[in-house]
Amino acid sequence: MPYSNIDKSKSKLNPHVSVDCVIFGFDFDELKVLLIERENPSSEGGLSIRNFSLPGNLISDDENLDQSAKRVLYELTGLTNIFLEQFYAFGDPERVKRKHDTEWLKSIRDEPSARVITVAYYSLVKLEAYSPTAASFAKKAEWYPITSIPALAFDHNHIVNKAIDTLKLKLQTQPLGFELLPEKFTLGQLQKLYEVILGTDLDKRNFRRKILNKKILIPLIEKQKGVPHKQAQLFMFDKEKYEEVKNTYFGFDF
Amino acid sequence: MPYSNIDKSKSKLNPHVSVDCVIFGFDFDELKVLLIERENPSSEGGLSIRNFSLPGNLISDDENLDQSAKRVLYELTGLTNIFLEQFYAFGDPERVKRKHDTEWLKSIRDEPSARVITVAYYSLVKLEAYSPTAASFAKKAEWYPITSIPALAFDHNHIVNKAIDTLKLKLQTQPLGFELLPEKFTLGQLQKLYEVILGTDLDKRNFRRKILNKKILIPLIEKQKGVPHKQAQLFMFDKEKYEEVKNTYFGFDF
Repeated sequence: MPYSNIDKSKSKLNPHVSVDCVIFGFDFDELKVLLIERENPSSEGGLSIRNFSLPGNLISDDENLDQSAKRVLYELTGLTNIFLEQFYAFGDPERVKRKHDTEWLKSIRDEPSARVITVAYYSLVKLEAYSPTAASFAKKAEWYPITSIPALAFDHNHIVNKAIDTLKLKLQTQPLGFELLPEKFTLGQLQKLYEVILGTDLDKRNFRRKILNKKILIPLIEKQKGVPHKQAQLFMFDKEKYEEVKNTYFGFDF
Repeated sequence: MPYSNIDKSKSKLNPHVSVDCVIFGFDFDELKVLLIERENPSSEGGLSIRNFSLPGNLISDDENLDQSAKRVLYELTGLTNIFLEQFYAFGDPERVKRKHDTEWLKSIRDEPSARVITVAYYSLVKLEAYSPTAASFAKKAEWYPITSIPALAFDHNHIVNKAIDTLKLKLQTQPLGFELLPEKFTLGQLQKLYEVILGTDLDKRNFRRKILNKKILIPLIEKQKGVPHKQAQLFMFDKEKYEEVKNTYFGFDF
Protein backbone atom coordinates (compact mmCIF):
# COMPACT_ATOMS: atom_id res chain seq x y z
CA MET A 1 0.00 0.00 0.00
CA PRO A 2 2.39 2.68 -1.19
CA TYR A 3 0.18 5.61 -0.27
CA SER A 4 -1.12 4.50 3.10
CA ASN A 5 1.42 6.72 4.80
CA ILE A 6 -0.06 9.93 3.38
CA ASP A 7 -1.86 11.71 6.17
CA LYS A 8 -4.76 13.47 4.47
CA SER A 9 -5.26 15.92 7.32
CA LYS A 10 -1.77 17.28 6.73
CA SER A 11 -1.45 17.44 2.95
CA LYS A 12 -3.34 20.41 1.58
CA LEU A 13 -4.88 20.11 -1.86
CA ASN A 14 -4.01 22.90 -4.27
CA PRO A 15 -7.34 24.30 -5.52
CA HIS A 16 -5.91 25.38 -8.91
CA VAL A 17 -3.95 22.41 -10.23
CA SER A 18 -5.07 18.85 -10.90
CA VAL A 19 -3.66 15.78 -12.61
CA ASP A 20 -5.52 13.41 -14.93
CA CYS A 21 -4.39 9.96 -16.02
CA VAL A 22 -5.02 8.39 -19.43
CA ILE A 23 -4.21 4.69 -18.98
CA PHE A 24 -4.32 2.73 -22.22
CA GLY A 25 -4.69 -1.02 -21.95
CA PHE A 26 -3.76 -3.44 -24.76
CA ASP A 27 -5.55 -6.79 -24.74
CA PHE A 28 -4.09 -8.31 -27.98
CA ASP A 29 -7.19 -7.33 -29.86
CA GLU A 30 -7.94 -3.68 -29.20
CA LEU A 31 -6.86 -0.60 -27.29
CA LYS A 32 -8.86 0.41 -24.25
CA VAL A 33 -8.79 3.31 -21.85
CA LEU A 34 -9.41 3.23 -18.11
CA LEU A 35 -12.36 5.36 -17.02
CA ILE A 36 -14.05 5.90 -13.71
CA GLU A 37 -17.73 6.38 -13.18
CA ARG A 38 -19.14 8.34 -10.29
CA GLU A 39 -22.61 8.56 -8.86
CA ASN A 40 -24.72 11.29 -10.25
CA PRO A 41 -25.18 13.77 -7.41
CA SER A 42 -28.44 14.98 -8.95
CA SER A 43 -29.75 11.55 -9.85
CA GLU A 44 -32.61 11.60 -7.35
CA GLY A 45 -34.65 14.22 -9.13
CA GLY A 46 -35.01 14.54 -12.87
CA LEU A 47 -32.56 13.09 -15.36
CA SER A 48 -30.18 10.39 -14.33
CA ILE A 49 -26.94 10.83 -16.28
CA ARG A 50 -24.08 8.38 -15.95
CA ASN A 51 -20.94 10.35 -15.20
CA PHE A 52 -17.71 9.10 -16.72
CA SER A 53 -14.29 10.69 -16.41
CA LEU A 54 -10.60 10.04 -16.41
CA PRO A 55 -9.09 9.22 -13.03
CA GLY A 56 -7.98 12.64 -11.82
CA ASN A 57 -7.99 14.99 -8.85
CA LEU A 58 -6.27 18.02 -7.33
CA ILE A 59 -2.58 17.85 -6.52
CA SER A 60 -1.39 18.04 -2.97
CA ASP A 61 1.03 20.79 -2.03
CA ASP A 62 3.69 18.45 -0.69
CA GLU A 63 4.01 16.40 -3.91
CA ASN A 64 5.58 17.01 -7.29
CA LEU A 65 3.37 16.43 -10.33
CA ASP A 66 4.58 12.87 -10.98
CA GLN A 67 3.85 11.93 -7.39
CA SER A 68 0.39 13.47 -7.59
CA ALA A 69 -0.45 11.49 -10.71
CA LYS A 70 0.64 8.22 -9.08
CA ARG A 71 -1.30 8.94 -5.91
CA VAL A 72 -4.50 10.01 -7.65
CA LEU A 73 -4.47 6.97 -9.94
CA TYR A 74 -3.98 4.72 -6.95
CA GLU A 75 -6.65 6.38 -4.82
CA LEU A 76 -9.33 6.11 -7.51
CA THR A 77 -8.50 2.81 -9.21
CA GLY A 78 -6.13 0.91 -6.93
CA LEU A 79 -3.57 0.69 -9.73
CA THR A 80 0.07 1.00 -8.83
CA ASN A 81 3.45 0.29 -10.45
CA ILE A 82 2.45 2.02 -13.67
CA PHE A 83 4.99 4.20 -15.46
CA LEU A 84 3.18 7.48 -16.03
CA GLU A 85 4.47 10.01 -18.50
CA GLN A 86 3.39 13.63 -18.53
CA PHE A 87 2.23 14.78 -21.96
CA TYR A 88 0.31 18.07 -21.80
CA ALA A 89 -1.25 20.71 -19.55
CA PHE A 90 -4.82 21.80 -20.25
CA GLY A 91 -5.87 25.23 -19.09
CA ASP A 92 -8.84 26.56 -20.98
CA PRO A 93 -10.81 28.88 -18.64
CA GLU A 94 -13.95 27.13 -19.97
CA ARG A 95 -12.85 23.60 -19.07
CA VAL A 96 -15.76 23.30 -16.61
CA LYS A 97 -18.95 24.53 -18.18
CA ARG A 98 -21.58 21.79 -18.08
CA LYS A 99 -24.08 22.00 -15.26
CA HIS A 100 -23.60 18.47 -13.97
CA ASP A 101 -19.83 18.96 -13.85
CA THR A 102 -20.28 22.12 -11.80
CA GLU A 103 -22.75 20.39 -9.49
CA TRP A 104 -20.39 17.52 -8.95
CA LEU A 105 -17.47 19.80 -8.08
CA LYS A 106 -19.64 21.48 -5.46
CA SER A 107 -20.16 18.11 -3.83
CA ILE A 108 -16.45 17.26 -3.50
CA ARG A 109 -14.32 20.43 -3.43
CA ASP A 110 -13.64 23.18 -0.96
CA GLU A 111 -13.39 25.81 -3.70
CA PRO A 112 -15.61 24.36 -6.44
CA SER A 113 -15.55 27.48 -8.60
CA ALA A 114 -11.73 27.87 -8.61
CA ARG A 115 -10.23 27.67 -12.07
CA VAL A 116 -8.26 24.44 -12.41
CA ILE A 117 -5.38 23.74 -14.80
CA THR A 118 -4.85 20.03 -15.27
CA VAL A 119 -1.56 18.31 -16.07
CA ALA A 120 -2.23 15.10 -17.97
CA TYR A 121 -0.27 11.85 -17.82
CA TYR A 122 -0.51 8.72 -19.93
CA SER A 123 0.64 5.15 -19.94
CA LEU A 124 0.22 2.04 -22.05
CA VAL A 125 -0.03 -1.27 -20.19
CA LYS A 126 -0.85 -4.90 -20.82
CA LEU A 127 -4.50 -4.91 -19.86
CA GLU A 128 -4.60 -8.38 -18.30
CA ALA A 129 -1.87 -7.45 -15.82
CA TYR A 130 -3.93 -4.74 -14.13
CA SER A 131 -7.28 -5.11 -12.39
CA PRO A 132 -8.67 -1.74 -11.40
CA THR A 133 -10.76 -1.45 -8.24
CA ALA A 134 -12.82 1.68 -7.77
CA ALA A 135 -12.41 3.67 -4.55
CA SER A 136 -12.90 7.18 -3.19
CA PHE A 137 -15.37 9.10 -5.37
CA ALA A 138 -15.06 6.52 -8.15
CA LYS A 139 -17.90 4.01 -7.97
CA LYS A 140 -16.63 2.02 -10.94
CA ALA A 141 -13.24 1.79 -12.67
CA GLU A 142 -13.37 -0.05 -15.98
CA TRP A 143 -11.73 -0.38 -19.40
CA TYR A 144 -13.53 1.06 -22.44
CA PRO A 145 -12.52 0.52 -26.08
CA ILE A 146 -11.13 3.75 -27.55
CA THR A 147 -13.45 3.25 -30.51
CA SER A 148 -16.48 3.81 -28.26
CA ILE A 149 -15.63 6.19 -25.46
CA PRO A 150 -18.63 7.72 -23.69
CA ALA A 151 -19.06 11.47 -23.14
CA LEU A 152 -16.65 12.40 -20.37
CA ALA A 153 -16.59 15.15 -17.74
CA PHE A 154 -14.94 18.52 -18.36
CA ASP A 155 -12.52 18.45 -21.34
CA HIS A 156 -11.62 14.80 -20.78
CA ASN A 157 -12.61 13.62 -24.28
CA HIS A 158 -10.19 16.21 -25.66
CA ILE A 159 -7.50 15.01 -23.26
CA VAL A 160 -7.97 11.39 -24.40
CA ASN A 161 -7.64 12.44 -28.05
CA LYS A 162 -4.45 14.33 -27.33
CA ALA A 163 -3.11 11.28 -25.49
CA ILE A 164 -3.84 9.08 -28.51
CA ASP A 165 -1.94 11.53 -30.74
CA THR A 166 0.98 11.45 -28.31
CA LEU A 167 0.97 7.67 -28.31
CA LYS A 168 1.01 7.55 -32.12
CA LEU A 169 3.99 9.91 -32.24
CA LYS A 170 5.75 7.85 -29.59
CA LEU A 171 5.25 4.74 -31.69
CA GLN A 172 7.31 6.35 -34.42
CA THR A 173 10.19 7.40 -32.23
CA GLN A 174 10.53 4.49 -29.82
CA PRO A 175 10.30 0.71 -30.01
CA LEU A 176 7.19 -0.71 -28.41
CA GLY A 177 5.90 -4.03 -27.21
CA PHE A 178 8.35 -5.24 -24.61
CA GLU A 179 5.92 -4.95 -21.71
CA LEU A 180 2.82 -5.55 -23.83
CA LEU A 181 3.41 -8.82 -25.68
CA PRO A 182 4.20 -12.31 -24.37
CA GLU A 183 7.92 -13.12 -24.10
CA LYS A 184 7.73 -15.03 -27.40
CA PHE A 185 5.47 -13.61 -30.06
CA THR A 186 4.75 -13.69 -33.78
CA LEU A 187 5.31 -10.76 -36.14
CA GLY A 188 1.55 -10.82 -36.66
CA GLN A 189 0.99 -10.11 -32.97
CA LEU A 190 3.48 -7.25 -33.04
CA GLN A 191 1.86 -5.81 -36.15
CA LYS A 192 -1.56 -6.00 -34.47
CA LEU A 193 -0.23 -3.88 -31.59
CA TYR A 194 0.92 -1.18 -34.03
CA GLU A 195 -2.34 -1.34 -35.97
CA VAL A 196 -4.48 -1.01 -32.88
CA ILE A 197 -2.61 2.10 -31.73
CA LEU A 198 -2.49 3.71 -35.16
CA GLY A 199 -6.12 2.81 -35.77
CA THR A 200 -5.31 1.58 -39.25
CA ASP A 201 -4.28 -1.57 -41.13
CA LEU A 202 -0.62 -1.83 -42.16
CA ASP A 203 0.89 -3.59 -45.13
CA LYS A 204 2.24 -6.91 -43.87
CA ARG A 205 5.39 -7.05 -46.01
CA ASN A 206 6.33 -3.44 -45.36
CA PHE A 207 5.86 -3.79 -41.64
CA ARG A 208 7.97 -6.95 -41.46
CA ARG A 209 10.77 -5.45 -43.51
CA LYS A 210 10.92 -2.28 -41.44
CA ILE A 211 10.68 -3.88 -38.03
CA LEU A 212 13.26 -6.57 -38.89
CA ASN A 213 15.61 -3.84 -40.18
CA LYS A 214 15.62 -2.30 -36.72
CA LYS A 215 17.49 -5.37 -35.41
CA ILE A 216 15.60 -5.42 -32.11
CA LEU A 217 14.11 -8.88 -32.69
CA ILE A 218 15.70 -12.29 -32.19
CA PRO A 219 14.21 -15.06 -34.36
CA LEU A 220 13.57 -18.33 -32.52
CA ILE A 221 13.65 -21.93 -33.76
CA GLU A 222 10.40 -22.50 -31.92
CA LYS A 223 7.15 -22.03 -33.78
CA GLN A 224 3.75 -20.90 -32.67
CA LYS A 225 1.70 -23.54 -30.81
CA GLY A 226 -2.04 -24.13 -30.65
CA VAL A 227 -2.80 -23.31 -34.26
CA PRO A 228 -3.68 -26.13 -36.66
CA HIS A 229 -1.47 -25.21 -39.62
CA LYS A 230 0.80 -22.46 -40.99
CA GLN A 231 2.47 -22.06 -37.60
CA ALA A 232 4.22 -18.71 -37.57
CA GLN A 233 7.76 -18.19 -36.43
CA LEU A 234 8.24 -16.85 -32.94
CA PHE A 235 10.46 -13.90 -31.99
CA MET A 236 11.84 -12.37 -28.83
CA PHE A 237 12.99 -8.81 -28.23
CA ASP A 238 16.73 -8.33 -27.97
CA LYS A 239 16.51 -6.50 -24.66
CA GLU A 240 19.92 -4.86 -24.92
CA LYS A 241 19.35 -3.55 -28.43
CA TYR A 242 15.77 -2.55 -27.52
CA GLU A 243 16.98 -0.40 -24.62
CA GLU A 244 19.72 1.08 -26.79
CA VAL A 245 17.39 2.35 -29.53
CA LYS A 246 14.86 3.41 -26.90
CA ASN A 247 17.40 5.85 -25.52
CA THR A 248 18.52 7.18 -28.88
CA TYR A 249 16.09 7.29 -31.75
CA PHE A 250 13.94 4.67 -33.38
CA GLY A 251 12.82 6.36 -36.58
CA PHE A 252 10.03 3.99 -37.49
CA ASP A 253 7.73 5.50 -40.07
CA PHE A 254 4.85 3.82 -41.84
CA MET B 1 0.08 46.54 -29.82
CA PRO B 2 -1.84 43.26 -29.55
CA TYR B 3 -2.10 43.28 -25.76
CA SER B 4 -2.91 46.92 -25.12
CA ASN B 5 -6.56 46.04 -24.72
CA ILE B 6 -5.95 43.94 -21.63
CA ASP B 7 -7.19 45.86 -18.64
CA LYS B 8 -4.85 44.84 -15.83
CA SER B 9 -7.23 46.00 -13.13
CA LYS B 10 -9.79 43.46 -14.34
CA SER B 11 -7.70 40.40 -15.12
CA LYS B 12 -6.74 38.62 -11.95
CA LEU B 13 -3.44 36.76 -11.87
CA ASN B 14 -3.68 33.16 -10.71
CA PRO B 15 -1.20 32.81 -7.83
CA HIS B 16 -0.52 29.12 -8.50
CA VAL B 17 0.15 28.83 -12.22
CA SER B 18 2.75 30.55 -14.38
CA VAL B 19 4.07 30.25 -17.91
CA ASP B 20 7.72 30.41 -19.01
CA CYS B 21 9.00 30.87 -22.55
CA VAL B 22 12.16 29.32 -23.98
CA ILE B 23 12.81 31.20 -27.22
CA PHE B 24 15.66 29.76 -29.25
CA GLY B 25 17.26 32.02 -31.83
CA PHE B 26 19.32 30.71 -34.76
CA ASP B 27 21.85 33.13 -36.22
CA PHE B 28 23.45 30.83 -38.89
CA ASP B 29 26.33 30.13 -36.56
CA GLU B 30 24.98 29.10 -33.20
CA LEU B 31 21.84 28.56 -31.16
CA LYS B 32 20.93 31.18 -28.58
CA VAL B 33 18.23 31.53 -25.97
CA LEU B 34 16.38 34.68 -24.95
CA LEU B 35 16.87 35.62 -21.31
CA ILE B 36 15.75 38.53 -19.25
CA GLU B 37 17.73 40.17 -16.52
CA ARG B 38 16.10 41.93 -13.60
CA GLU B 39 17.51 44.30 -11.04
CA ASN B 40 18.66 42.68 -7.89
CA PRO B 41 16.27 43.83 -5.17
CA SER B 42 18.96 43.26 -2.54
CA SER B 43 21.81 44.76 -4.54
CA GLU B 44 22.24 47.77 -2.29
CA GLY B 45 23.58 45.89 0.69
CA GLY B 46 25.96 42.98 0.47
CA LEU B 47 26.44 40.87 -2.64
CA SER B 48 25.33 42.13 -5.99
CA ILE B 49 24.16 39.16 -8.02
CA ARG B 50 22.96 39.53 -11.60
CA ASN B 51 19.58 37.87 -11.87
CA PHE B 52 18.81 36.08 -15.12
CA SER B 53 15.68 34.15 -15.93
CA LEU B 54 13.43 33.01 -18.72
CA PRO B 55 10.64 35.42 -19.66
CA GLY B 56 7.77 34.18 -17.50
CA ASN B 57 5.00 35.25 -15.15
CA LEU B 58 1.69 34.19 -13.60
CA ILE B 59 -1.24 33.43 -15.86
CA SER B 60 -4.31 35.58 -15.80
CA ASP B 61 -7.64 33.93 -15.03
CA ASP B 62 -9.33 35.09 -18.22
CA GLU B 63 -6.74 33.54 -20.56
CA ASN B 64 -5.98 30.02 -21.68
CA LEU B 65 -2.37 28.86 -21.34
CA ASP B 66 -1.37 29.68 -24.93
CA GLN B 67 -2.70 33.21 -24.54
CA SER B 68 -0.85 33.65 -21.26
CA ALA B 69 2.43 32.61 -22.83
CA LYS B 70 1.99 35.08 -25.70
CA ARG B 71 1.06 37.93 -23.37
CA VAL B 72 3.88 37.31 -20.89
CA LEU B 73 6.49 37.07 -23.64
CA TYR B 74 5.20 40.32 -25.12
CA GLU B 75 5.05 42.16 -21.80
CA LEU B 76 8.63 41.30 -20.85
CA THR B 77 10.44 41.35 -24.19
CA GLY B 78 8.19 43.12 -26.70
CA LEU B 79 8.26 40.06 -28.97
CA THR B 80 5.11 39.15 -30.81
CA ASN B 81 4.12 36.92 -33.75
CA ILE B 82 6.07 33.99 -32.40
CA PHE B 83 4.60 30.50 -32.63
CA LEU B 84 4.87 29.12 -29.11
CA GLU B 85 4.49 25.44 -28.43
CA GLN B 86 3.79 24.01 -25.02
CA PHE B 87 6.26 21.27 -24.04
CA TYR B 88 6.14 20.48 -20.33
CA ALA B 89 4.75 21.48 -16.93
CA PHE B 90 7.18 21.82 -14.03
CA GLY B 91 5.80 21.40 -10.53
CA ASP B 92 8.45 20.46 -8.04
CA PRO B 93 7.41 21.86 -4.61
CA GLU B 94 11.06 22.95 -4.25
CA ARG B 95 11.18 25.02 -7.45
CA VAL B 96 11.77 28.19 -5.44
CA LYS B 97 14.39 27.62 -2.82
CA ARG B 98 17.21 30.13 -3.27
CA LYS B 99 17.10 33.17 -1.04
CA HIS B 100 17.39 35.76 -3.79
CA ASP B 101 14.55 34.11 -5.73
CA THR B 102 12.34 34.26 -2.64
CA GLU B 103 13.27 37.88 -2.03
CA TRP B 104 12.48 38.80 -5.57
CA LEU B 105 9.03 37.16 -5.48
CA LYS B 106 8.23 39.17 -2.36
CA SER B 107 8.90 42.33 -4.31
CA ILE B 108 6.53 41.55 -7.18
CA ARG B 109 3.79 39.14 -6.07
CA ASP B 110 0.69 39.37 -3.92
CA GLU B 111 1.17 35.84 -2.60
CA PRO B 112 4.94 35.39 -2.82
CA SER B 113 4.99 32.12 -0.89
CA ALA B 114 2.26 30.40 -2.94
CA ARG B 115 3.46 27.26 -4.66
CA VAL B 116 3.63 27.85 -8.41
CA ILE B 117 3.41 25.23 -11.17
CA THR B 118 4.83 26.54 -14.42
CA VAL B 119 3.78 25.49 -17.91
CA ALA B 120 6.69 25.93 -20.31
CA TYR B 121 6.55 26.91 -23.98
CA TYR B 122 9.28 26.98 -26.60
CA SER B 123 9.93 28.32 -30.05
CA LEU B 124 12.75 28.44 -32.56
CA VAL B 125 13.10 31.64 -34.58
CA LYS B 126 15.49 33.32 -36.97
CA LEU B 127 17.38 35.51 -34.53
CA GLU B 128 17.87 38.50 -36.82
CA ALA B 129 14.12 38.86 -37.34
CA TYR B 130 13.41 39.59 -33.68
CA SER B 131 14.76 42.45 -31.58
CA PRO B 132 13.73 42.04 -27.97
CA THR B 133 13.09 45.15 -25.89
CA ALA B 134 12.94 44.73 -22.13
CA ALA B 135 9.87 46.01 -20.29
CA SER B 136 7.95 45.50 -17.03
CA PHE B 137 10.23 43.84 -14.44
CA ALA B 138 12.76 42.89 -17.13
CA LYS B 139 15.59 45.41 -17.26
CA LYS B 140 17.34 43.65 -20.12
CA ALA B 141 16.20 41.10 -22.69
CA GLU B 142 19.07 39.54 -24.63
CA TRP B 143 20.20 36.44 -26.52
CA TYR B 144 22.71 34.11 -24.87
CA PRO B 145 24.48 31.17 -26.58
CA ILE B 146 23.17 27.88 -25.24
CA THR B 147 26.74 26.78 -24.75
CA SER B 148 27.20 29.42 -22.03
CA ILE B 149 23.94 30.02 -20.21
CA PRO B 150 24.28 31.79 -16.87
CA ALA B 151 22.75 30.49 -13.63
CA LEU B 152 19.03 31.19 -13.91
CA ALA B 153 16.28 31.78 -11.37
CA PHE B 154 14.17 28.96 -9.91
CA ASP B 155 14.40 25.75 -12.00
CA HIS B 156 14.91 27.66 -15.26
CA ASN B 157 18.20 25.96 -16.20
CA HIS B 158 16.39 22.64 -15.93
CA ILE B 159 13.56 24.02 -18.10
CA VAL B 160 16.02 25.15 -20.78
CA ASN B 161 17.64 21.70 -20.85
CA LYS B 162 14.27 20.02 -21.24
CA ALA B 163 13.45 22.45 -24.07
CA ILE B 164 16.68 21.54 -25.86
CA ASP B 165 15.79 17.83 -25.57
CA THR B 166 12.34 18.58 -26.98
CA LEU B 167 13.86 20.51 -29.87
CA LYS B 168 16.21 17.62 -30.69
CA LEU B 169 13.33 15.16 -30.75
CA LYS B 170 11.31 17.53 -32.91
CA LEU B 171 14.17 17.70 -35.37
CA GLN B 172 13.82 13.99 -35.93
CA THR B 173 10.09 13.97 -36.49
CA GLN B 174 9.55 17.18 -38.49
CA PRO B 175 11.33 19.03 -41.26
CA LEU B 176 13.02 22.21 -40.13
CA GLY B 177 14.48 25.33 -41.64
CA PHE B 178 11.68 26.95 -43.59
CA GLU B 179 11.45 29.99 -41.32
CA LEU B 180 15.10 29.89 -40.29
CA LEU B 181 17.15 29.90 -43.49
CA PRO B 182 17.19 32.35 -46.41
CA GLU B 183 14.83 31.47 -49.26
CA LYS B 184 17.76 30.01 -51.21
CA PHE B 185 20.36 28.14 -49.22
CA THR B 186 23.16 25.61 -49.54
CA LEU B 187 23.05 22.10 -48.07
CA GLY B 188 25.96 23.24 -45.91
CA GLN B 189 23.79 25.92 -44.32
CA LEU B 190 20.99 23.44 -43.69
CA GLN B 191 23.44 20.96 -42.18
CA LYS B 192 24.81 23.69 -39.90
CA LEU B 193 21.29 24.30 -38.56
CA TYR B 194 20.92 20.62 -37.66
CA GLU B 195 24.39 20.49 -36.14
CA VAL B 196 23.82 23.55 -33.98
CA ILE B 197 20.60 22.11 -32.55
CA LEU B 198 21.98 18.62 -32.05
CA GLY B 199 25.17 20.04 -30.59
CA THR B 200 27.27 17.66 -32.67
CA ASP B 201 28.96 17.42 -36.08
CA LEU B 202 27.22 15.31 -38.70
CA ASP B 203 28.72 13.31 -41.53
CA LYS B 204 28.34 15.42 -44.66
CA ARG B 205 27.57 12.61 -47.11
CA ASN B 206 25.10 10.93 -44.81
CA PHE B 207 23.28 14.16 -44.09
CA ARG B 208 22.98 15.04 -47.78
CA ARG B 209 21.75 11.61 -48.74
CA LYS B 210 19.12 11.53 -46.03
CA ILE B 211 17.81 15.05 -46.48
CA LEU B 212 17.64 14.71 -50.28
CA ASN B 213 15.76 11.42 -49.89
CA LYS B 214 13.02 13.31 -48.08
CA LYS B 215 12.17 15.11 -51.33
CA ILE B 216 11.44 18.39 -49.60
CA LEU B 217 14.20 20.31 -51.43
CA ILE B 218 14.18 21.77 -54.92
CA PRO B 219 17.66 22.09 -56.51
CA LEU B 220 18.27 25.42 -58.29
CA ILE B 221 20.40 26.24 -61.32
CA GLU B 222 21.72 29.23 -59.43
CA LYS B 223 24.91 28.85 -57.44
CA GLN B 224 26.08 30.46 -54.24
CA LYS B 225 27.40 34.02 -54.65
CA GLY B 226 30.08 35.92 -52.76
CA VAL B 227 32.46 33.02 -52.33
CA PRO B 228 35.67 32.92 -54.39
CA HIS B 229 35.61 29.31 -55.58
CA LYS B 230 33.79 26.01 -55.12
CA GLN B 231 30.44 27.76 -55.24
CA ALA B 232 27.88 25.42 -53.75
CA GLN B 233 24.56 24.62 -55.31
CA LEU B 234 21.54 26.45 -53.95
CA PHE B 235 18.27 24.82 -52.89
CA MET B 236 14.77 25.93 -51.98
CA PHE B 237 12.20 24.14 -49.87
CA ASP B 238 9.31 22.60 -51.75
CA LYS B 239 6.68 24.31 -49.61
CA GLU B 240 3.86 21.94 -50.48
CA LYS B 241 5.88 18.81 -49.79
CA TYR B 242 7.36 20.41 -46.66
CA GLU B 243 3.90 21.06 -45.22
CA GLU B 244 2.79 17.59 -46.19
CA VAL B 245 5.55 15.77 -44.30
CA LYS B 246 5.23 18.24 -41.44
CA ASN B 247 1.68 17.07 -40.89
CA THR B 248 2.45 13.40 -41.19
CA TYR B 249 5.81 12.09 -40.14
CA PHE B 250 9.34 12.98 -41.10
CA GLY B 251 11.38 10.12 -39.68
CA PHE B 252 14.79 11.74 -39.96
CA ASP B 253 17.33 9.89 -37.89
CA PHE B 254 21.05 10.54 -37.72
